[in-house]
Amino acid sequence: MTRPGRLHLNAFLMSVGHHEASWRLPESDPYADLDVEHFKNLARIAERGRLDSLFLADGPVLWDQVGRRPSGVLEPTVLLTALAGATRHIGLIATASTTYNEPYNLARRFASLDIVSGGRAGWNIVTTAGLDAARNFNLDALPAHRERYERAAEFVDVSLKLWDSWDDDVIVADKETGVWGDDTRIYPPAHRGHYYSVAGALNVPRSAQGHPVLVQAGSSENGRNFAARYAEAVFTAHQTLADAQEFYDDLKRRTLEAGRDPDHIKILPGIVPIIGRTVAEAREREAELERLIRPEYALAQLAGLIGVDPSELSLDEPLPANLPDEEQIEGAKSRRTLVVNLGRRENLTVRELIGRLGGGRGHLTFTGTAVQVADEIEHWYTHGAADGFNIMAPVLPSGLEAFVDQVVPILQERGRFRTEYTGRTLREHYGLPRPANRNTAAGTPVHSEEGALTR
Amino acid sequence: MTRPGRLHLNAFLMSVGHHEASWRLPESDPYADLDVEHFKNLARIAERGRLDSLFLADGPVLWDQVGRRPSGVLEPTVLLTALAGATRHIGLIATASTTYNEPYNLARRFASLDIVSGGRAGWNIVTTAGLDAARNFNLDALPAHRERYERAAEFVDVSLKLWDSWDDDVIVADKETGVWGDDTRIYPPAHRGHYYSVAGALNVPRSAQGHPVLVQAGSSENGRNFAARYAEAVFTAHQTLADAQEFYDDLKRRTLEAGRDPDHIKILPGIVPIIGRTVAEAREREAELERLIRPEYALAQLAGLIGVDPSELSLDEPLPANLPDEEQIEGAKSRRTLVVNLGRRENLTVRELIGRLGGGRGHLTFTGTAVQVADEIEHWYTHGAADGFNIMAPVLPSGLEAFVDQVVPILQERGRFRTEYTGRTLREHYGLPRPANRNTAAGTPVHSEEGALTR
Repeated sequence: MTRPGRLHLNAFLMSVGHHEASWRLPESDPYADLDVEHFKNLARIAERGRLDSLFLADGPVLWDQVGRRPSGVLEPTVLLTALAGATRHIGLIATASTTYNEPYNLARRFASLDIVSGGRAGWNIVTTAGLDAARNFNLDALPAHRERYERAAEFVDVSLKLWDSWDDDVIVADKETGVWGDDTRIYPPAHRGHYYSVAGALNVPRSAQGHPVLVQAGSSENGRNFAARYAEAVFTAHQTLADAQEFYDDLKRRTLEAGRDPDHIKILPGIVPIIGRTVAEAREREAELERLIRPEYALAQLAGLIGVDPSELSLDEPLPANLPDEEQIEGAKSRRTLVVNLGRRENLTVRELIGRLGGGRGHLTFTGTAVQVADEIEHWYTHGAADGFNIMAPVLPSGLEAFVDQVVPILQERGRFRTEYTGRTLREHYGLPRPANRNTAAGTPVHSEEGALTR
Repeated sequence: MTRPGRLHLNAFLMSVGHHEASWRLPESDPYADLDVEHFKNLARIAERGRLDSLFLADGPVLWDQVGRRPSGVLEPTVLLTALAGATRHIGLIATASTTYNEPYNLARRFASLDIVSGGRAGWNIVTTAGLDAARNFNLDALPAHRERYERAAEFVDVSLKLWDSWDDDVIVADKETGVWGDDTRIYPPAHRGHYYSVAGALNVPRSAQGHPVLVQAGSSENGRNFAARYAEAVFTAHQTLADAQEFYDDLKRRTLEAGRDPDHIKILPGIVPIIGRTVAEAREREAELERLIRPEYALAQLAGLIGVDPSELSLDEPLPANLPDEEQIEGAKSRRTLVVNLGRRENLTVRELIGRLGGGRGHLTFTGTAVQVADEIEHWYTHGAADGFNIMAPVLPSGLEAFVDQVVPILQERGRFRTEYTGRTLREHYGLPRPANRNTAAGTPVHSEEGALTR
């Protein structure tokens, strides 16, 4: 099968690497999770590789792993604003919760990041699983999965109204007459919904790219329907090409059914590339990282993910036969299924499963040479399993440097990846259209692509 | 009267200046309110002058003035993060509302800004007056003044618990044993109060300065009591030395009665300095700005401030005899009284009052030479009316440049202002102590001034 065109690459940044034991390597700075210079360095490396974007995960909670790994998480819109100043081209995608924010505040913060970065912002929309997070926000119980997604849909609807509450050409800046803006081109949302009432317009104009790119990462039934309706890029986790193809086809179909162009949703599975000059060198790196895992911590996390008590798991036994099914999980439903299937399919002991999960928490770990990593990426792309990849370097910065300096040039030589940025905004990097303003789209377009802010 | 020591100076940044007509001057960029480079330039000018801090006001609402003046307001924690990267020393104070945020999110965002900036963050705590803001957050009515302040007090209590939820020496980073942090030194707030329940610890450690400096700007009875209990710096507005002295004495007394050291609350009245090489030049600048005001807009704003319908005001008449008193105002109570008293004391017509308010919305406008501005500042300082000033340049950047290049050197020559930064954090600039962690303060101090993050 051949498929023309170029793929998209996102750098998923996390502390000193996605592998939970990466901080224990001699090369790693264990304070880097709180060091903005570390992240600026990573952003510059990713931009050197002409990557589409970088991405930060997030949750408003301190996970129970302070003993185990670096646990400081700077708030992503703050951190990405700092990275905007250290870069010129790369997109900046922050995770934020629809369950624990107010639409006016969050839409405004993303609009501000979008303007400060010159149209490079993206929002990874999450509903935030976990009772611990709920308990930080006046709740004694986690809202149900379905309710969280209903709330998310209304939250995004309100955000879109807010981002379109200024037409592109509000600002007239007529010093002579003393008229700064044309307030007939301000459209207050006047939204009164089930979860939210938001009357007034945003106090930030439309950005160079119209509004931030909407990103989503849930793969449950609710998550897929939500993505089909709203998402412009999707992060997802698959262990096999066949699973990825099934997901890809399913989500493109749902997007079409939702009345959208399937090409306007970019599907990016995660990959943890462990790169060596030889296969043996890569395997030794992988083994070195596995040896540094403390299994007693990892076991507790695995137990939580699949919904059992840690005492029910034994390190040198396979997973128990009877496990709660996806329906009983209120958290990351699809991730639970992926992990259980991985353990069962390969008949792994709990210890082996922990080793496999240590690098990517369920994402595909691929260990090999740069050519093999490039081959795998291209293979998934040409075989309809991905529009690109979410690169989760096991160790940072070295793993991202290896990817950018060794894998990217191969993809560029093959014509599969850009050699220079041709676009200006995140939307342009991903080949996504600048959305028309929903308040004026019915009539004649009244503004150019350039928008009011670029003059 | 003589008073030794040095005063403190904050640069209050706003678009292209505090004078509402400043954007109409030939020198002004009317798009600058949305241009991060404009603000970086202002921050560098303020830092060149060795100012303690810069400050951004805020409200989650589009004010009804798009026609009148630049109305885009980038979210302050985002904008200040961008400015943190453009500066090294100056403090960064953002306004945020306790009425329309969640403590976990806001405390975390300020902690993140504090870490990204190396301990330079401050939070101007506001309760956000105005029905328009309430209607952006699911409400049909503004919560009462008293309720907003009760909520604010609990909000700050929770924030302090969150900022102290990591001891300074949590991070041990022991690669050998694989222990990153000492989770016995994590103190979850477990807060269950009237307005908020927040169970878990923050996912951001304590900063170099312990926690952001707490700033407050309300001068009502509720506002003064709140400031006495929490504030470390206070922005205030006075038209006369006598009023400022009364406020200064009152707030220092209340702070003492609240069990705090009165020297640990710095009182900074606002001043709009209109600076010329001669008095005549300064007066001409002032007149030029007044001529550019559109009175029909300003009249509507004045009416709102004092609680009457615009039709009750005539441009060439004094204020009406019967006006709602402070008790009937749910918004900026003390500002209403200040404006009414100014109009009555000087028997101003509405047009004249609008001219006087155009520059500083009730703050003191001082028109003169650099020496006269320095004299006025020093006079208020030595006569117990201020610990320093909140500098509200009428036009930006030129008004801040004039202050920094002409007034600051005079204050430095007189020994009234620093010539170099000697501290590293905002707290150190203001001579405020680094707070002990409330969870460990009863015992022996377990950490040095340097904290865990500085290594």
